[in-house]
Amino acid sequence: MEPNSKIVRFEHGDGLLLDSGVRLEPFEIAYETYGTLNQDRSNAILICHALTGDQHVADDPEDSEKSGWWSNLVGPGKALDSDKYFVICSNVLGGCMGSTGPSSINPETGKIYGLDFPVITISDMVRAQAMFIDRLGIERLFSVVGGSMGGMQVLEWAARYPERVLTAIPIATSHRHSSQNIAFHEVGRQAVMADPDWRQGRYLDEGCNPRSGLAVARMAAHITYLSDEALHQKFGRSLQDRDSLTFGFDADFQVESYLRYQGYRFVDRFDANSYLYITRAMDYFDMPKDHGGILANAFKDTKSRFCVISFTSDWLYPTRESREIVKALNAVAANVSFVEINSEKGHDAFLLDEPEMFSTVSGFLDASADALGITLEQAQGKGV
Amino acid sequence: MEPNSKIVRFEHGDGLLLDSGVRLEPFEIAYETYGTLNQDRSNAILICHALTGDQHVADDPEDSEKSGWWSNLVGPGKALDSDKYFVICSNVLGGCMGSTGPSSINPETGKIYGLDFPVITISDMVRAQAMFIDRLGIERLFSVVGGSMGGMQVLEWAARYPERVLTAIPIATSHRHSSQNIAFHEVGRQAVMADPDWRQGRYLDEGCNPRSGLAVARMAAHITYLSDEALHQKFGRSLQDRDSLTFGFDADFQVESYLRYQGYRFVDRFDANSYLYITRAMDYFDMPKDHGGILANAFKDTKSRFCVISFTSDWLYPTRESREIVKALNAVAANVSFVEINSEKGHDAFLLDEPEMFSTVSGFLDASADALGITLEQAQGKGV
Repeated sequence: MEPNSKIVRFEHGDGLLLDSGVRLEPFEIAYETYGTLNQDRSNAILICHALTGDQHVADDPEDSEKSGWWSNLVGPGKALDSDKYFVICSNVLGGCMGSTGPSSINPETGKIYGLDFPVITISDMVRAQAMFIDRLGIERLFSVVGGSMGGMQVLEWAARYPERVLTAIPIATSHRHSSQNIAFHEVGRQAVMADPDWRQGRYLDEGCNPRSGLAVARMAAHITYLSDEALHQKFGRSLQDRDSLTFGFDADFQVESYLRYQGYRFVDRFDANSYLYITRAMDYFDMPKDHGGILANAFKDTKSRFCVISFTSDWLYPTRESREIVKALNAVAANVSFVEINSEKGHDAFLLDEPEMFSTVSGFLDASADALGITLEQAQGKGV
Repeated sequence: MEPNSKIVRFEHGDGLLLDSGVRLEPFEIAYETYGTLNQDRSNAILICHALTGDQHVADDPEDSEKSGWWSNLVGPGKALDSDKYFVICSNVLGGCMGSTGPSSINPETGKIYGLDFPVITISDMVRAQAMFIDRLGIERLFSVVGGSMGGMQVLEWAARYPERVLTAIPIATSHRHSSQNIAFHEVGRQAVMADPDWRQGRYLDEGCNPRSGLAVARMAAHITYLSDEALHQKFGRSLQDRDSLTFGFDADFQVESYLRYQGYRFVDRFDANSYLYITRAMDYFDMPKDHGGILANAFKDTKSRFCVISFTSDWLYPTRESREIVKALNAVAANVSFVEINSEKGHDAFLLDEPEMFSTVSGFLDASADALGITLEQAQGKGV
């Protein structure tokens, strides 16, 4: 789906032992970078994307048509300034934008994986990213930043590679997926799998696409990304291009029309099986369970500096879950700052124009660079 | 689907002019009653059911296998005591349990209505109920009680027939359907309509059933009936009949298994087109709009006594919406009491074991009977 990104390839013998016990090899990671790595290799920031995100985090400087999904935060002169930092973003394992996933060719059969692709975890994604960061020749990351599932990866990075992560910014996220969130994901997967065009996951081989099922999954998920208040302010009960109710099942209300649009637009850019695999990885995410039932154990002896950010109206990953992360970090005397930002935009706030988030991120990074004595000059730097 | 209930039939010439402008005739209303109407005809209580409810509100005294959906509230010796009150419950217009709806025969074609059934509103449901209550020979109802969509009908009854409603108990409801709630309903409808077995609504003629689509719709809706906390307490991240994750797409988690069960069990008892019509009626519900933009106008000069009940963890019809109803009633100096009940069970709390709800309802009814000087004796009463 995305032939233009840079790719690193891990060949047979250089693969990854997944949490499932399956060895994945060969595999590829597609990525983008913005800015220049400095001589000290000290200004690298890894951005981890969310469920349906990709490696195109900032606007493409060479193509004004291609905008990045976090271009209000990342780019020249932005809070995450690519004139200062070397910004890296890679498509997750299991994704559909160039990294190896269920729509890739299974080397054992020569056919598309489909459901033969192994189920992956957030930890698998992060270990693949670490292998990729090794390839870039970067020992330590100045920061790892991400929202939602991206925030899960940030936490996993900090827990797994404390020496490689100077600062970590998990935003609008959780240390484990809640029962309600598993439930919403399950609805989405059931919607995809109920579509006869899913063909037990073999739709690409059979020349079809479970468009309706994936669109329904996206519609349900989309509601959870917003808030009651955001929907009320944005749409209320306004009618769509009509003066009165039609007494039918067309999209009378703007919110219906908006949801249908969101659902079907998504289908054009995303692979249904990747949706199954990535939601599954999120459901499996449970840091306390991986650390003897105590979240704080994940961050024992951490030297990383943390900045945890949540939003008041986010009911998918509510502030209380960020507080649990902060409490665990406090329990190990970690260096942590925590900001709950007032917003009516719901979970999606982390992707939107939230000046307090921008200033929090840039302020935290500047202060951390000062405190750590890190020179961010990239004038004499050299790209990877 | 339900041949055993009592039926009243409104023949051609005795029909109902719907809000859509369509005249519905003939039509039938299926109902159940519990207890005995007293000689004064003063002890009748109408229960209005919710989206997927029906007329079987209490346990069937003649069949211990048939339990009612609100049997913890309604029955002999219960808060809504059928030894004292004559309890009536009818299936809503558009339903699938005996009242006329999209699975009924269209008299004009001799075929099942399907999508030729006219779109109905909460007001249509209530006006049909009023015609049915007329047939029972009951002038005034001691109370009209209902939760969720049932509560919408309660409000509509009080607004439309103030002389016929002595007391009104709207529970866990709203005076208009919010944007978020319309959005969740639209997801459900899209799930049904995306199922190829829906056949543009003609599935009954064609001998099939959009089971998968309706099950997905029910699963999504079911999450909204609970609360994050209820799901956490009930399931957490517990696994279903296994000791560890399977790294697959089976229902690893109990909450997944529970949702699938709820979805597919629902399909066996409910008609997909009824689901479309009834959700649509709820989406169209907007009392302020029907009264010049001011909710209080709906209750001008009301003599009815109101008891408004909400639950702390209900995020589908949150307490603030009940407060708006109370404010509107206060604005017209209505007799209103308001109770917000502490519960972690979410919207479904109104159907569950909530002792404070039971005592609130029985206390309010007893006090109202005293205040209104109503004799509830039914010893010498005579059934309808």
